[in-house]
Amino acid sequence: VLAARLHDNHDLRVEQVPDPTHLGPNEVRVRPRWCGICGTDLHEYAHGPLYVPKENLPQILGHEFSADVLEVGSDVSGVKVSDRVAVLPHVFCGTCYFCVRGRQGLCRSLRLTGVSWPWGGLAEEAAVPAYQCIPLPDEVSYEQGAILEPLASVVHAVERSTRAGDRVLITGAGPIGQLAVLATAAAGASEIYVSEPNRVRRQQAERLGSSAVFDPAATDVGEEVRERTGGLGVDASIECSGSQAALDACVDATRAAGYVAQIAIHVGPRTVVPETWTWKDLTIAGIWSFKFYDTPRILRQVAAGKLPVERIVTSKIEVTDIVSKGIERLADPSGDQVKILVSLHPDGHGGGEG
Amino acid sequence: VLAARLHDNHDLRVEQVPDPTHLGPNEVRVRPRWCGICGTDLHEYAHGPLYVPKENLPQILGHEFSADVLEVGSDVSGVKVSDRVAVLPHVFCGTCYFCVRGRQGLCRSLRLTGVSWPWGGLAEEAAVPAYQCIPLPDEVSYEQGAILEPLASVVHAVERSTRAGDRVLITGAGPIGQLAVLATAAAGASEIYVSEPNRVRRQQAERLGSSAVFDPAATDVGEEVRERTGGLGVDASIECSGSQAALDACVDATRAAGYVAQIAIHVGPRTVVPETWTWKDLTIAGIWSFKFYDTPRILRQVAAGKLPVERIVTSKIEVTDIVSKGIERLADPSGDQVKILVSLHPDGHGGGEG
Amino acid sequence: VLAARLHDNHDLRVEQVPDPTHLGPNEVRVRPRWCGICGTDLHEYAHGPLYVPKENLPQILGHEFSADVLEVGSDVSGVKVSDRVAVLPHVFCGTCYFCVRGRQGLCRSLRLTGVSWPWGGLAEEAAVPAYQCIPLPDEVSYEQGAILEPLASVVHAVERSTRAGDRVLITGAGPIGQLAVLATAAAGASEIYVSEPNRVRRQQAERLGSSAVFDPAATDVGEEVRERTGGLGVDASIECSGSQAALDACVDATRAAGYVAQIAIHVGPRTVVPETWTWKDLTIAGIWSFKFYDTPRILRQVAAGKLPVERIVTSKIEVTDIVSKGIERLADPSGDQVKILVSLHPDGHGGGEG
Amino acid sequence: VLAARLHDNHDLRVEQVPDPTHLGPNEVRVRPRWCGICGTDLHEYAHGPLYVPKENLPQILGHEFSADVLEVGSDVSGVKVSDRVAVLPHVFCGTCYFCVRGRQGLCRSLRLTGVSWPWGGLAEEAAVPAYQCIPLPDEVSYEQGAILEPLASVVHAVERSTRAGDRVLITGAGPIGQLAVLATAAAGASEIYVSEPNRVRRQQAERLGSSAVFDPAATDVGEEVRERTGGLGVDASIECSGSQAALDACVDATRAAGYVAQIAIHVGPRTVVPETWTWKDLTIAGIWSFKFYDTPRILRQVAAGKLPVERIVTSKIEVTDIVSKGIERLADPSGDQVKILVSLHPDGHGGGEG
Repeated sequence: VLAARLHDNHDLRVEQVPDPTHLGPNEVRVRPRWCGICGTDLHEYAHGPLYVPKENLPQILGHEFSADVLEVGSDVSGVKVSDRVAVLPHVFCGTCYFCVRGRQGLCRSLRLTGVSWPWGGLAEEAAVPAYQCIPLPDEVSYEQGAILEPLASVVHAVERSTRAGDRVLITGAGPIGQLAVLATAAAGASEIYVSEPNRVRRQQAERLGSSAVFDPAATDVGEEVRERTGGLGVDASIECSGSQAALDACVDATRAAGYVAQIAIHVGPRTVVPETWTWKDLTIAGIWSFKFYDTPRILRQVAAGKLPVERIVTSKIEVTDIVSKGIERLADPSGDQVKILVSLHPDGHGGGEG
Repeated sequence: VLAARLHDNHDLRVEQVPDPTHLGPNEVRVRPRWCGICGTDLHEYAHGPLYVPKENLPQILGHEFSADVLEVGSDVSGVKVSDRVAVLPHVFCGTCYFCVRGRQGLCRSLRLTGVSWPWGGLAEEAAVPAYQCIPLPDEVSYEQGAILEPLASVVHAVERSTRAGDRVLITGAGPIGQLAVLATAAAGASEIYVSEPNRVRRQQAERLGSSAVFDPAATDVGEEVRERTGGLGVDASIECSGSQAALDACVDATRAAGYVAQIAIHVGPRTVVPETWTWKDLTIAGIWSFKFYDTPRILRQVAAGKLPVERIVTSKIEVTDIVSKGIERLADPSGDQVKILVSLHPDGHGGGEG
Repeated sequence: VLAARLHDNHDLRVEQVPDPTHLGPNEVRVRPRWCGICGTDLHEYAHGPLYVPKENLPQILGHEFSADVLEVGSDVSGVKVSDRVAVLPHVFCGTCYFCVRGRQGLCRSLRLTGVSWPWGGLAEEAAVPAYQCIPLPDEVSYEQGAILEPLASVVHAVERSTRAGDRVLITGAGPIGQLAVLATAAAGASEIYVSEPNRVRRQQAERLGSSAVFDPAATDVGEEVRERTGGLGVDASIECSGSQAALDACVDATRAAGYVAQIAIHVGPRTVVPETWTWKDLTIAGIWSFKFYDTPRILRQVAAGKLPVERIVTSKIEVTDIVSKGIERLADPSGDQVKILVSLHPDGHGGGEG
Repeated sequence: VLAARLHDNHDLRVEQVPDPTHLGPNEVRVRPRWCGICGTDLHEYAHGPLYVPKENLPQILGHEFSADVLEVGSDVSGVKVSDRVAVLPHVFCGTCYFCVRGRQGLCRSLRLTGVSWPWGGLAEEAAVPAYQCIPLPDEVSYEQGAILEPLASVVHAVERSTRAGDRVLITGAGPIGQLAVLATAAAGASEIYVSEPNRVRRQQAERLGSSAVFDPAATDVGEEVRERTGGLGVDASIECSGSQAALDACVDATRAAGYVAQIAIHVGPRTVVPETWTWKDLTIAGIWSFKFYDTPRILRQVAAGKLPVERIVTSKIEVTDIVSKGIERLADPSGDQVKILVSLHPDGHGGGEG
């Protein structure tokens, strides 16, 4: 089958690999339909291998995808052949401290499909643990299903920071920030402010339902937010950019006793002023992954039309174009792309009808 | 000024009363625009005085209303003349155990405008404590403002029972149940089931966004809910009817480790099986009032279009018709009315333009 | 091996049964040391079989016990031969809705050792799933370990009702109520009131650290509690008696916005006044079992000396005396027993040195 | 009356000031008994004025004190002459966003007795708002009452980070860290590790109930903690030192999904690695002050013997010795002092008998 494999940084090849065979008793063979390109994929391509173990190279990428189930292992009971599913990347042990407490995303021996597992979503077929397959309700398309993984992380950030009725600041309007606009709205936020330097992304955030968008290069975000909130600040902020300035803006713009959710991965150290955390009695929540078994309920929200996640998609491409039309466009800081979905079956069997 | 005063049960008179004068330093004089008729008003009319102290008779009714501010006392700073406001009924001390903890609705010497305070919303003018006046955002109409009080109670019930993504059962689709449909939706519920014997109310609940409505006379609610939830039951249920059967249905239909919010006022004793609470590790939340100072954030949600509360209004009448076109129609169990708003200024100064 | 088997009500025989053989790969063979007699054992003896499935008779009883590990199945890794362990009774699937969310005690196909599993703690040996074995810290005795199961339920009740600094009412001072005295104290309760008609139990509750004890036959519990709390009521109450009067007392004695944890199993219906729940904005928590994987942390509290659970033990007997010196004494409402531990190895190999 | 007034840094004079007169209607005149010296007092002396407004100089210091009530203003009802009280320093408006929500410690116009209010606890008499006076239960001594203010901050930190049964790391064993040992123990912590470079302070922490103490100069705190917790890390850590190394150690030593409470005031910027917060799904809580009206419940815990706060006191001195025997000894990093209480009535009327 065709697969996009990372051989080294700047060396991603779309090439034939042997079919998945010898399915384990608790595994399934799936046919990926749509697979999203994630920011970490860009990092692996530009600076990697980072989270991809060196010894795994060449690694099939792709950890945000929907699929059809083609075959199930002998002990599989939760999914069946021809099920339409979202595939979550988590490979977890089920018995460690975190797994038995319902926090499988923090499994002490966590691996990730598309990062540190033999298969990934950027392949015509893949073999994955059956529990990774979350059935898609009829109302949910393959495209929407491919966005479940980042959506679930954002929902986790929202749960740890935001209460219905809150005024919220989102810094960074890449795919995570755009999903944060949708997820805070779905959770009842009353006002959603977005700070983002890229004009195209600001416009998209506005279309998705932001109350106001700011260019942090032109605006003092904290001041602007205070002006719009009677001098108080927002109840919660969600940092989705990974920049020092945005982290500072979140702490500055959030009211006392408020919440800052830190979901972007910040590469390297940052300078902070903990004294401000103290004066504000602030809560800062580092956000990793999500509660694995919350994903069916999130899909139900998508099915009910409350999380129109397909609206963050700016392009749909074929896997053979993944570098030129995918990674390179996303890596351009002044570019116009937010989320690009890759079809694994460009011959017409892709998710178009999904 | 004209006012609707309860003299005794079945004796509600719309009559002239002396104007409010001698405003206290922390009071304001307001001109009510729209005032809702509440279920407790029906009880007071049919069986009262109940919560109205006998010695207060004749009592001006009306505790759900919007108004214009006409005059402010000498020490008032939070509102000013000509402000458009929702008026909340709570008269609280500000210094008791509950008030200093932000739970003014539980004030140990709580009184209520329209129930146990000289003035009420069913009058052309009223004198009330200034803090009762919550300014209406420009986007919020007087009609919407008149519904803030019951809405806030429902939001409190939702907060104590429901998490974004939940499947929810609402029993009873009177005004509280209809608001619960809106409030659970705004808080991110993924599926909303409504049980209600009256066909007209079921239809309205459906229009407001319920996923499914049931007639409890024809359906075993618990069975129906389990069938729709993979045998599990809903995550949360909100009892808005006041009947034994509905309370039973909520406990039956809610999954283990779920939540039952009990907001309807049940008159008299009920029979329960606490063993079921135990097996289910269930949480039951009696719901009284709300966090008083959450109301501005709730109004912001209304302003943002997330809580279209005006949609529960089935009729708008003049105060002179309050008994014949208001109370009597609402008291009819087979009737077609849910929430009736009363105009205090039927001469054209009413809230029509609000 | 010798075992106490329920053949029918009033027919509990201490008799030889075949040794446990054919250990499953995830099972262990244990030698029970001390096993507590639980209130449900009394019910099974007097009125059963109730929770014991009829087809299981004769059923080995005993679901609160400590043991030594004698042999481990081929796939067992968490425990090893000669480990000192508390054995929890839960047999759970590990994959249902509740198990994957860390609520194994609510497993949809839950069975219980000593109730609906071939073996129980009232036997010289038993075969149980390995995960049921929670290693005892060195500082924790076998006697203490035998009390882990009821203790964990009580800790779950405390977590769902009580905050450090709270004033608490406990109704009923049987073993659950006595443990509630210890567990609320360990969780930081500032005052602990106990209502119990039996004088001996009141005295024991007092010795364990209650601030005050009341005889509900002689005292209006609600009034007494209000008098001691400046008219306010307790922050939380824990119903451990199973009687109508005690349930009423808890609701009456708890302040507005407080918590009532209902842990006793109430046989049959009860009459309640939900209007009171409403006025008080009360939370009622039905308590079933506990978070299975919280038990190691609870044992650490025992090890640290913060939960001296051995102090609730009033007698230690041999298994051959279980009916005459165990069940019959506990069933006597005017008796002087609270918790009786049964030794499975009365020849000197019992837990005496533990 | 005699008072200790800060004229400028290194210029603290014990001198006569005019008596408090012209008591406001909601004020009381008190006679301070014992007053603690706080770390911020040291900062004001060494580097100030910092939080003391320049225009207030000379400022009477002292914001941790107990007192007798000598006289009450005309509108005071909550306290009466001769009441024994702890005096909290918060001067709050009662009507701002935070005050009406029960968070008076975050009042938008907060001032503090002993910092930015004409009077302080280091004076023979003082005039303060009546609500600052929290009556001492009979069982609570004046010395204990003088420690209520820092204790309440620590309890707030514990509430935002620690759950009964937790294993906890405390970094820094100054007065705040020592109180954290007591408060985590009272809240049910099962193991309490303390990291502190000063040997005397480590020994004191051990005496107060720590499970283990480490010298961070000699030990890798994160490694040590992981070794003691099966490789997992603590559930919660409380940073009480204000140093970069301790902040790092807390983040390092805390398990995934755990809590770091940051209560020490860090002067200046710190370098952090937010990527770690992310991987760990960590919650960091900046801790400012406390819920003002939680203080009576905290005093009840002291009364019940659960928070023996007097045990952190290492010296008791007279106000005339405040610099030489108080501030200078506390400022010595290798010193043997933790908490020094100052008597305002060294002639025998001090709190000795309290």
